[in-house]
This record gives sequence, C-alpha cells and structure tokens, in this order.
Amino acid sequence: MTIVQFEHRPGLLDLGWGHPRPELLPVDAWSRAGAQTLGTYGWQALAYGHATGPAPLVDWLCDHLGDATAEQTFVTAGASHGLALLTQLLAEPGDVVLVDSPTYHLAFKILTDHGVRLVRAPADEHGLLPAETAALARSLDAVFLYLVPTFGNPTGRSLPLDRRRELVSVGVPIVEDDTYRELSYGEPAPPALWRLAGEEGVVRLGSFAKTVAPGLRLGWINASPILVERLARLGYVHSGGGVNHAVALTMASFGASGAYDRHVAGLREAYREQRDALTGALRVPAPDGGWFVWLRLPDGVDAEALLPVAEEHGTSFLPGPVFYAGGGAGSEHVRLSFSHLPPAGLAEAAARLTAAIDAAAGR
Amino acid sequence: MTIVQFEHRPGLLDLGWGHPRPELLPVDAWSRAGAQTLGTYGWQALAYGHATGPAPLVDWLCDHLGDATAEQTFVTAGASHGLALLTQLLAEPGDVVLVDSPTYHLAFKILTDHGVRLVRAPADEHGLLPAETAALARSLDAVFLYLVPTFGNPTGRSLPLDRRRELVSVGVPIVEDDTYRELSYGEPAPPALWRLAGEEGVVRLGSFAKTVAPGLRLGWINASPILVERLARLGYVHSGGGVNHAVALTMASFGASGAYDRHVAGLREAYREQRDALTGALRVPAPDGGWFVWLRLPDGVDAEALLPVAEEHGTSFLPGPVFYAGGGAGSEHVRLSFSHLPPAGLAEAAARLTAAIDAAAGR
Repeated sequence: MTIVQFEHRPGLLDLGWGHPRPELLPVDAWSRAGAQTLGTYGWQALAYGHATGPAPLVDWLCDHLGDATAEQTFVTAGASHGLALLTQLLAEPGDVVLVDSPTYHLAFKILTDHGVRLVRAPADEHGLLPAETAALARSLDAVFLYLVPTFGNPTGRSLPLDRRRELVSVGVPIVEDDTYRELSYGEPAPPALWRLAGEEGVVRLGSFAKTVAPGLRLGWINASPILVERLARLGYVHSGGGVNHAVALTMASFGASGAYDRHVAGLREAYREQRDALTGALRVPAPDGGWFVWLRLPDGVDAEALLPVAEEHGTSFLPGPVFYAGGGAGSEHVRLSFSHLPPAGLAEAAARLTAAIDAAAGR
Repeated sequence: MTIVQFEHRPGLLDLGWGHPRPELLPVDAWSRAGAQTLGTYGWQALAYGHATGPAPLVDWLCDHLGDATAEQTFVTAGASHGLALLTQLLAEPGDVVLVDSPTYHLAFKILTDHGVRLVRAPADEHGLLPAETAALARSLDAVFLYLVPTFGNPTGRSLPLDRRRELVSVGVPIVEDDTYRELSYGEPAPPALWRLAGEEGVVRLGSFAKTVAPGLRLGWINASPILVERLARLGYVHSGGGVNHAVALTMASFGASGAYDRHVAGLREAYREQRDALTGALRVPAPDGGWFVWLRLPDGVDAEALLPVAEEHGTSFLPGPVFYAGGGAGSEHVRLSFSHLPPAGLAEAAARLTAAIDAAAGR
C-alpha cells in the first residue's frame, strides 16, 4: 500500500508516466485556498452541495471558459469520471462507441466497463478523418465518438481547423476530451469542437488535473441543459449533493483569487522548457501544447521490442499499440511524456532512448 | 444556482432534511487538517493517488474499525458512490435487488440507475425477516439485499441481534449500509453484519458524511480482496488514481491527530440532546442512535394527507411511503429528522406537528 500512483523504478528516467512533475503542484497556494474557503464559506463548504456543482465554481468557470453557461455545466470528479457518467447515461451494453486512433488508452476501459463495443475511427497522420468517420458512425449506429482533439494524448497534436469544421458538420455525436487545452506553449489552442458546434453536437469534458492537480479529482462537463439535468438526477449525485463539493468550492477560491491564472502561466513556462529539453535532445519537432511527444521510430524498430532495450538503457515509455483500441497498430510509434521529469532528466532520458534505438536498429 | 443542497423555506421548521446541523460541521478542525496534510505530504497530497485509497487513511481506518484489513478496504466518494460502484460491478440490467422495507429512499434511484429491479424484502415492526427474505432471494435469484441495519434510515431502529445472526446464516449476499454506526447515544451499536459474517457474505458501506461532513464526499467499502481489486481496476478509478485522493489524505490527518475521535464524541452529545428535545416533546420512545424518529400516526391520519396540514402549521417531514420501494405502504408513518435543527427548534417543530396531527385527526 502506498500513497500515490507513481512508482519510482530505481535507475530509470521514465518517460512513460503522464503525471505532473511533483515540484509543479501548487502545494502552498492550494493550502491557502483551502483555509480561505473554510473562512469564507464556513459550514457551506462541508454540507451537502448543489448537485451540478457549487455556484461560485460554476460562475468562475463559465467566466473563464467564455463559451458555456451555468446551465450547460456539471462539475465532475475529473474527466475520467465525466466519461464514465456520460457512458452510463448515453450508451447501452452492446452499443458502439467510436474512438480516435490513436487516443487516450485509459479511456478504453472506462468505456468498456459499461459494456460498449469500441471501434476505431479512421484517421491519417494529421488526425481523424471526418467524412469517413461519419460514414462508419452511421453504419454502426454509434452512440458517440470520443477524441482528444487538442494537444492530444498520445500525439501532442491538434486536429487541424478545417477538419474540426468538417467534423462538427457531419452529424456525429461527439465527446470532446479537452483536458490539455490550457497547456499551450506557442500558438493558442485551436477552437474547441464545443465552441464550434455548441451543445447540439458536442459534449465537452474538462479537467483541473493537468492545470492544478490530479489528486483533487475535479473537472466538468459542458453539455445541453437537458443532459446536465439528467446528470444531476443520477441517484448517487442527488444523494451525495454533487460529486466533490468541498474541493469544488476550494477551486472557486483558487480561481477567484487569481491563483489559477498565475499557476497556469507558470506551468506553461515550465512545461515549455521541459518540452524543449526533450525535443531538442531528440531533434524532433516540438508539439504546440500538452504533455506528449509521439515519436516515430526508424524503419525496422518495433515499439514493443524496443521497450526492454530502452529499460536496459535506463529509460522507458509507452509503446504505440496501447493507444489503439484492440491493438494491432501503432508499433512504429512510442509515447514520450515530458510532464514528469525536469529538463536535465529529460535530456538524459532522450540520450538513453537514442542509444537504445540505435542498438535496436543494429546501428 | 446555489452553493448547498439545503433550501430554507421561510416560516418552516423542517424535519424533512437528513442533513447535519450546520453548527456541528468541523470547519476549523478541517481547515487545520488541510494545512497539516499539505505540510506533511506535500506534492503527494495533490498527485494521482493509490487506486484503493492512500495508505495513511486506509491504515488509520482499519485500526479504527478493528474488523477489516487494508486488503478488504476501498476508499469511495461516499456511501452512495460506493453503492453505485457495487451495483455497476455486481448487477446486470434486469437483475433483482432486494431492499429492506422501509429503507433509505435515495438508494432506490442509485440502484435503478443501473437497470435493476427492486423488490421489497419481508419485514415486520422489528425489521427484516431473515428466513422469508432468504426464500424470496432464492426464488428471484436476487444479486444482493440492501439494508441499513444499524440506527437505520428512516426508522432509527437496529435489527435485533438474533435476526442479525440468522440473516448472515441464510446465504443471502448482503450490502450493509453502516452509515450511522458511530452515532450511538446510549447502548453501543449492535455488531455489524460485516463483523458477524466476514467478507464471504457481506459488503459493508461506510461513510464520513455523518461523522465528519457530507460535502467531503468520502467513505469506504469493506469487501473481499477480490472485490476490492475489481473496484480498483474500474477504468475511471485506475485512470484517476482513486476517487477522492486529496480529501482522503486530509481525513487521514484528521483521524491520526485525534480530531476525529474528539469530533464524534462531541456529535454524540449534541445529537443526543437534539434527539431528546424531539422525542421528549412528542412523548415517543427515543431511538438509540442515528438521525431519525419513525413516528407512528394516529389511526385515520395518513402521512401524505398530513404533509400539507403540517406545512400550514409551520413544520414538515418525509411521509412514510417514500421509504418503500414502489410505494403503496408506510402511510401510517412519517420520518422526522433531529439532525438539522437545534433543540429549541426541534421542540417547537414537535409542538407544531402535534397541532397538525390533532387538526388532521379532527380533534
């Protein structure tokens, strides 16, 4: 039994963990927000909360987002929890859900826990192909498409604007995981599918896991007021008075005080430096945002075969196939996370990985 | 949009809310625990947590409970959340779940959200009838029986020890909602079904909602290590690193510092006084624990017909039928909560209720 999920393996500079660098978690600022919340709201911070989330957080969030109303907002215990709730509400066992290829691998289990069948949406090297996806969705009567279109996991890349516009016009119900939007290191993020399409075609999952702290288990769903109401009426949401009331109200204080904006600005600087350390050492293009580099391996080097070689060289990663539902693709790529190690560690990990690739390629 | 679930209705001394009295929520002590947690654990309080809960909480809790191991413990976001997770794992749509009659009404929606069919277990004025329940469970192939056997909601009463012993011997899988155990005002609570039967026959739901604060959304499940492992492997639990990590670690500090024991001792004093104010004014027997009085109405007075009369007299309650799955029973009882109002308010509410009953009875 341990405290945290992360397990340090001695001798490894591990690029596999999509976790924040511990030094970047806002320990002192969150402590201040907690004390401030209990001082300001008193017992209201500890009582049964409002089912869709406490008004101070919802109001701050809608103001911050600029593209959603309070009636379109439901506070969750994180994006993963939001996806689980949506799947429970929207899908029946046996239904088909389309998933981008590649996409966030831990979403697969969240979806299949509800008995749905996963089918990979067609994509090329720039991302999802809207017309082909729409045809597949119609032929399979898919209940929705799940994707991370902005600074995505695992690719770090964003779906191009023309494909976004096309995707929201082809009539596929979309669940947009928008977890990485705030972490942009150059050009601002492209517009969310939610912003382009509105509540008719898109449900958006947001999260404070990457911008503040994953241990808080706090995020939100933007959806039509009808769907928000259905979420609020879920038995355990009603019974519990929302899903994470005290933390949600603390986040309202963290936002209103300006701590959120200051913290995210600092994260952008820090993660940009970490990104540059990794991509500079590997001599590969830098993604515009997020936490990941999707590294193409030399011809003849297989991601899963490379893994033990890399670990012998003192580094690790996640092989590409885990990001394709059902597997059988992606063996020419690996996902490297630059979120968890400091710049010097990333540069050293890159050197070890390069040596491992050379060894695996027989160079 | 508001902050909390509770809505004050002007002029009403409302006995309907099963909520803690605001003055009894540990605002200052929880604030100290929060600061202490971030000081002690630093980034570990904010990172992705261990899937079954952080070790410091699990260890303190098992020590406190004295009848469960760490391998038998999974930290939840409250008892309602625990019931939702168990239902998702154990039941298929169309399965039958037996529920005590009467029992906690908000559990019904949690269960039916997963498509199960609710059937009322046979009971008399002392509670559930074990042999008859076992026969019904077998005939319907029920996946489990849900009940609140100790200081129960809505009755305040506990299943007698002989029925407990019989119930754990008749082979019905049991989900024991043990939310009110700590709130005993006289004799200690009878042994939990979990303690009598162990992990083979019982899953126990625990909660910090009544003992510390409902807005924290924190509780636990005691179950077999196999079931705990299945809970930990749920996609959204694994993805999120547990379900409420930062709050769970704060509760570990609250427990280890002695604040939990001090707070619960104070609650017992306060709620005993509140209980006595209500039962004394009504001249009815006092329950040994929990938050509720299950008041038998005079012959000819119907609970639902009484409700508008009571509200005209400036008080309110929950009518008995809401606590029977499917309704159609319980109209001779009302549930009165003594958790939410101070003693003077409870005495006045009792006087108003007595006047309303007299009016409804035509006296």
